[in-house]
Amino acid sequence: MNIPSSNNERVVIIGGGFAGLALAKKLRNRKFQVVLLDKHNYHTFQPLLYQVATGGLEAGSIAYPIRKVIQEYKDFYFRLTSVKEIDTVNQKIISEIGDLHYDYLVIATGSKTNYFGNKEIERNSMSMKTIPQSLNIRSLILENFEQAVLIKDEAEKQALMNFVLVGAGPTGVELAGALAEMKKAILQKDYPDLDITKMEINLVQGDDRVLNAMTEKSSKAAEDFLLKLGVKIWKNVRVTNYDGRTITTDSDLTFESATVIWTAGVQGAKVAGLKAESLIQRVDRIRVNEFSQVVGYENIFAIGDIASMETPKYPQGHPMMAQPALQQGCLLGENLVRLAEGKAMKAFEYNDKGSMATIGRNKAVVDLPHYHFHGVFAWFVWMFIHLISLIGFKNKAVVFMNWAYNYIAFDREGRLIIRPYKKRSFTTFTSDEI
Amino acid sequence: MNIPSSNNERVVIIGGGFAGLALAKKLRNRKFQVVLLDKHNYHTFQPLLYQVATGGLEAGSIAYPIRKVIQEYKDFYFRLTSVKEIDTVNQKIISEIGDLHYDYLVIATGSKTNYFGNKEIERNSMSMKTIPQSLNIRSLILENFEQAVLIKDEAEKQALMNFVLVGAGPTGVELAGALAEMKKAILQKDYPDLDITKMEINLVQGDDRVLNAMTEKSSKAAEDFLLKLGVKIWKNVRVTNYDGRTITTDSDLTFESATVIWTAGVQGAKVAGLKAESLIQRVDRIRVNEFSQVVGYENIFAIGDIASMETPKYPQGHPMMAQPALQQGCLLGENLVRLAEGKAMKAFEYNDKGSMATIGRNKAVVDLPHYHFHGVFAWFVWMFIHLISLIGFKNKAVVFMNWAYNYIAFDREGRLIIRPYKKRSFTTFTSDEI
Repeated sequence: MNIPSSNNERVVIIGGGFAGLALAKKLRNRKFQVVLLDKHNYHTFQPLLYQVATGGLEAGSIAYPIRKVIQEYKDFYFRLTSVKEIDTVNQKIISEIGDLHYDYLVIATGSKTNYFGNKEIERNSMSMKTIPQSLNIRSLILENFEQAVLIKDEAEKQALMNFVLVGAGPTGVELAGALAEMKKAILQKDYPDLDITKMEINLVQGDDRVLNAMTEKSSKAAEDFLLKLGVKIWKNVRVTNYDGRTITTDSDLTFESATVIWTAGVQGAKVAGLKAESLIQRVDRIRVNEFSQVVGYENIFAIGDIASMETPKYPQGHPMMAQPALQQGCLLGENLVRLAEGKAMKAFEYNDKGSMATIGRNKAVVDLPHYHFHGVFAWFVWMFIHLISLIGFKNKAVVFMNWAYNYIAFDREGRLIIRPYKKRSFTTFTSDEI
Repeated sequence: MNIPSSNNERVVIIGGGFAGLALAKKLRNRKFQVVLLDKHNYHTFQPLLYQVATGGLEAGSIAYPIRKVIQEYKDFYFRLTSVKEIDTVNQKIISEIGDLHYDYLVIATGSKTNYFGNKEIERNSMSMKTIPQSLNIRSLILENFEQAVLIKDEAEKQALMNFVLVGAGPTGVELAGALAEMKKAILQKDYPDLDITKMEINLVQGDDRVLNAMTEKSSKAAEDFLLKLGVKIWKNVRVTNYDGRTITTDSDLTFESATVIWTAGVQGAKVAGLKAESLIQRVDRIRVNEFSQVVGYENIFAIGDIASMETPKYPQGHPMMAQPALQQGCLLGENLVRLAEGKAMKAFEYNDKGSMATIGRNKAVVDLPHYHFHGVFAWFVWMFIHLISLIGFKNKAVVFMNWAYNYIAFDREGRLIIRPYKKRSFTTFTSDEI
């Protein structure tokens, strides 16, 4: 990989997401050589991917070049690559662009969509974990409507205008709300020769409430918001298959749809080479102790979505969200410095700042540790928190301007088909994984 | 194509560029049914493509959804498709999505890159006429540097850092200047492990001055600006081949480069089906009379780059630029209305408002009909004219903000590789034409 040798010990970080980047910042100009690897050359602010998918924001506004973050860090290297395997015996990682020795290895590869082994669903549905995937969804939505105007067959036309979102966690709920607003704000005006009232947004949830990681009060409020926006909510329904046209479920219910977006589960984005005892097979997460140390290794750590730190309060590990990732990344930065200085590491304790989701214009739900609220104020809180969390002044400013414009103009201008799917039919949709 | 029948005569416009869109606006709520066809669902502001390619602007800022333009027009339809052929006998166009009868046909398909028949250059070099192509160039530039950091072989490294722009018209000159600024503003900071001073920007021109359609004074000023920015200018040199690695010329001069951007010529983006006498084979343009009527037809018109209206002042047709396209589109709109009202059409007369090019920060050249100037003021004039020419308030605001940010921060944040080239080697580069 052409990394110069150094007097400092080398920390290799796999992944420039919330966890990896928080760690990188903490290791700035410390006595380490740091090599950060990612398969994209940018950090993605995942909580806003659904706005890219639905035309509210441009991709560039929610991404930030990784090299720009580390521009002024000494003895710090970025490499654009995927890691194929870890060779723990020889302390090196094996990547597409060669091997690299590590003194400390930090796995921060995040998570990917979990189809629970159903290959047909995986092949036919879309997922939304990366910017290219969000742009694909945006293109697909618009291409569906371009196709719908051409078709006379009512059933086909309806299938193109039916959207099925599987999974009513934050991603499913936010996407459903944004699609409903896209219907009103854009599609109704852009496609006067279609009866857009027939467009259906179906949100399918396996258990009995949406946003089931939030309070019941917030779930209820979110459901009310969604219903008000015209989203159809199907609770206690499990999708069993999707052949590219028909969605079957564990009940008699079926849907005909050209577009299924799958947000029903995540699993760790695993890397090969760790001992079996270090892994939780079912969800592909890595077992770590309270110092984020991978079980069975001294000098290998895992942070963020990929890491499962089982504590009495979180027996299944922490939620796979930005906050635990950020906090683990920061603490590990401190701990690596302590380790190098011969000091004891500090145990991780998750500071749960709460969670929130936005459903649409003036509609959000917020759960703080001791206080739950929803509506207009919650929506402003949601916007404020997301704005200040974005990296970079320009991104903040551009996102703010876009939101202001979208709010005032009831519009979303991000509707360019720039990643078209080549010649698709109902049976050849693929979710381009890059 | 599922276009409803109408009591109005049908105008079919092929192409939503400057000419086609100007015409569409003029036909707003007139007594025509209008069907506008384009292979993209957006209008592209081509003069700023080079800024997308070099990370100064996001694609969304220089494009505008066509459906949004025509949202409130009556009896107006947009269809996303490519036209394969015109059947002038039966008065219909044959497209990917079916046939369509026309009463009046307007060909506004614009131009495409002209490789003068050299297939090897076409296969191995990049061109920059569309947004996807600009994003490809951006990705390729950044991927080159990501690859260069990995390579130890000095010759290969140098080839990745050598850029060759063939053709010193406005596109070549603006791109060369922007690349030179990208070198200083971004690459130098982002790639500390590379010796960026070795990056070469070579601008190759077939005759003896750059911007040869402008005044000699402006050519001279542009050359000085380019040299000041470190661009190497090669005049009176013709590129004869490029195999993906070595560029050969009509002299002893050769270049080793992984990236050739070809801006040395344009030709009409022709549509099959017209009589031979209507065409100028050499440049694939369509011969039109002073009413933009295609020679040999009563009810077929051509406007913009594709049309060649040979007049005493412009014996080769008008320059293939935005201004003639806009003016022809507007006049044809009026003329079609006059025609339908049984009035005589007005002859086109080109109002040459001048031309301009920007080379970089504080560096532009402007030729007005009776006045030529360059430098800081020219640069502000250039920015002002381009800003007000963009469609849409939000695009204007976002572009303005980006320019202000880039100016103040000496930065360009648009450096996401979102259309990566899968596994490339020197010999497998392709310029993905979509």
